[in-house]
Amino acid sequence: MKIALDAMGGDFAPQAAVDGAVLAAQKLAGAAQIVLIGQEDAVRPLLQQHGAAADGLILQPASQIIEMGEHPAKAYQQKQDSSIAVGYRMLHNGEVEAFCSAGNTGAMLVGAMFSVKPVSGVMRPAIANFVPKLAGGFGILLDVGANAECKPEMLEQFGELGSLYAQYVLGIDKPKVGLMNLGEEEGKGTVVTQAAHQLLKVNPHIHFIGNIEGRDLFNDKADVIVCDGYTGNVVLKMAESVYDVLAEKQMHDPFFDKFNYEAIGGSPILGINDNAIIGHGVSTPEAICNMLLQGYQMAKSGIADQIKDTFKS
Amino acid sequence: MKIALDAMGGDFAPQAAVDGAVLAAQKLAGAAQIVLIGQEDAVRPLLQQHGAAADGLILQPASQIIEMGEHPAKAYQQKQDSSIAVGYRMLHNGEVEAFCSAGNTGAMLVGAMFSVKPVSGVMRPAIANFVPKLAGGFGILLDVGANAECKPEMLEQFGELGSLYAQYVLGIDKPKVGLMNLGEEEGKGTVVTQAAHQLLKVNPHIHFIGNIEGRDLFNDKADVIVCDGYTGNVVLKMAESVYDVLAEKQMHDPFFDKFNYEAIGGSPILGINDNAIIGHGVSTPEAICNMLLQGYQMAKSGIADQIKDTFKS
Repeated sequence: MKIALDAMGGDFAPQAAVDGAVLAAQKLAGAAQIVLIGQEDAVRPLLQQHGAAADGLILQPASQIIEMGEHPAKAYQQKQDSSIAVGYRMLHNGEVEAFCSAGNTGAMLVGAMFSVKPVSGVMRPAIANFVPKLAGGFGILLDVGANAECKPEMLEQFGELGSLYAQYVLGIDKPKVGLMNLGEEEGKGTVVTQAAHQLLKVNPHIHFIGNIEGRDLFNDKADVIVCDGYTGNVVLKMAESVYDVLAEKQMHDPFFDKFNYEAIGGSPILGINDNAIIGHGVSTPEAICNMLLQGYQMAKSGIADQIKDTFKS
Repeated sequence: MKIALDAMGGDFAPQAAVDGAVLAAQKLAGAAQIVLIGQEDAVRPLLQQHGAAADGLILQPASQIIEMGEHPAKAYQQKQDSSIAVGYRMLHNGEVEAFCSAGNTGAMLVGAMFSVKPVSGVMRPAIANFVPKLAGGFGILLDVGANAECKPEMLEQFGELGSLYAQYVLGIDKPKVGLMNLGEEEGKGTVVTQAAHQLLKVNPHIHFIGNIEGRDLFNDKADVIVCDGYTGNVVLKMAESVYDVLAEKQMHDPFFDKFNYEAIGGSPILGINDNAIIGHGVSTPEAICNMLLQGYQMAKSGIADQIKDTFKS
């Protein structure tokens, strides 16, 4: 199995990318090979610095870089030899089984939509992220930014996508799906959440437990938390800021330390035909390493096929 | 000046209400009188337990109680001698200058809308809450639940209402108004936030600093954070849960301790003709006391008149 990494993506690339890939290769211990995609001149010397530890890593040349500030769709189209475009091409061609990048988030989404494409039957793919649970492990939160605005049917599908991920990748049996809302009662919320509640309630593929509230993010009410991308993004960034403040105050705790994005890896794009993960722009080697291990887990679990099966009817 | 308190409102009423009122009376030291509204048989003995400390408190009888689970509009209409209905009547008649209750939130909103009524020109009043700032003090967040769904013009008005509160009650000079969004760039977000951004940008009454993100809640980018009631409610309850987890883990810190709703008091309803504050259902005496002191500050500041002046054109 091969997992690809955008060696040029992220604020500290290519150094952090190469260091993270070497770390991941050690942990994978041959279970999967890592393909580093990027400018040969920049990446090769960094690999050499690692000596024998980098022996198993494959370098796939890509001459261009999509910068963080570039217009995603335009850059993706114009830079066909960029590390992101090459990564998606390899993914689409089956040369690698997952593609990870801490680069331009918009370009990663563009590639997901236009290269590997949404699974037939999925209205709009979602970006998922993870919230630590007080009882241990993580829950999955989606969407966190791909779709600021959602139709009720999209939220219903996010419930299904998240439930499949929780089941097949996180290993949660019969995951509990909750709809983020401003009250527990069925009739609460916006027109969209009210309608989504009715759809989720009768969906036979999931175990819907009803509305949850902002205070339920960390408890064990729901393993899968469904919301629109606007809300998910606010929640995610707020959780990150809580971690940052605690870290700055040197208030450490095993639970709150799991808020650290580095421990989580990246955000999978769910509902597309292959496995793609978006990393944090400020990804450190540890974060890159965890994103690659997550890509390996996704590929091994066959989550993309599970999603295709569920939605093919 | 007289500040009224619903003595029957909240999970620990009337005990917590009476104890909180006595505490507040001590702190106010005669600057304002507190009127306790509730069932005489229940409240009088509790006042007597406080002896001389309760001497200045006024008891206003109200024979009925709107329970937490009751349908707000129906209960408000049917129980005209409830503590909430009597409180709003006194407020509307000018017998008291602020009314505070930790009781049924929905009934408090109904009373605000139908008894003291929205300020002419205000489309929909908002419930505000407060977020501690790392640099000290508090910012104001609105709406946190009165309006799950918002039009762009409502968000614009929330910016004005919050700005006036920040200026006149919190004493912040030229408060910075930020629009909660999923990215800093002007074009980000939902159709509603995009349109609201354009309205806020040209509003002459406020100092709009643009979009802010979930990570900016606690920093000093914005003093006033504008969002729809659905989002604000999720954010507020999530912040409360962070405090609860920290408290349970006995992780104390002056900044995070300010997340405690008890220190904040209550949530003012902004955009109505008088001063009304909704307290947390689980309000302790300390929370009740702080809600009353906040009511006093609001009344003293003349915030309701400032709002009327701004919107009268």
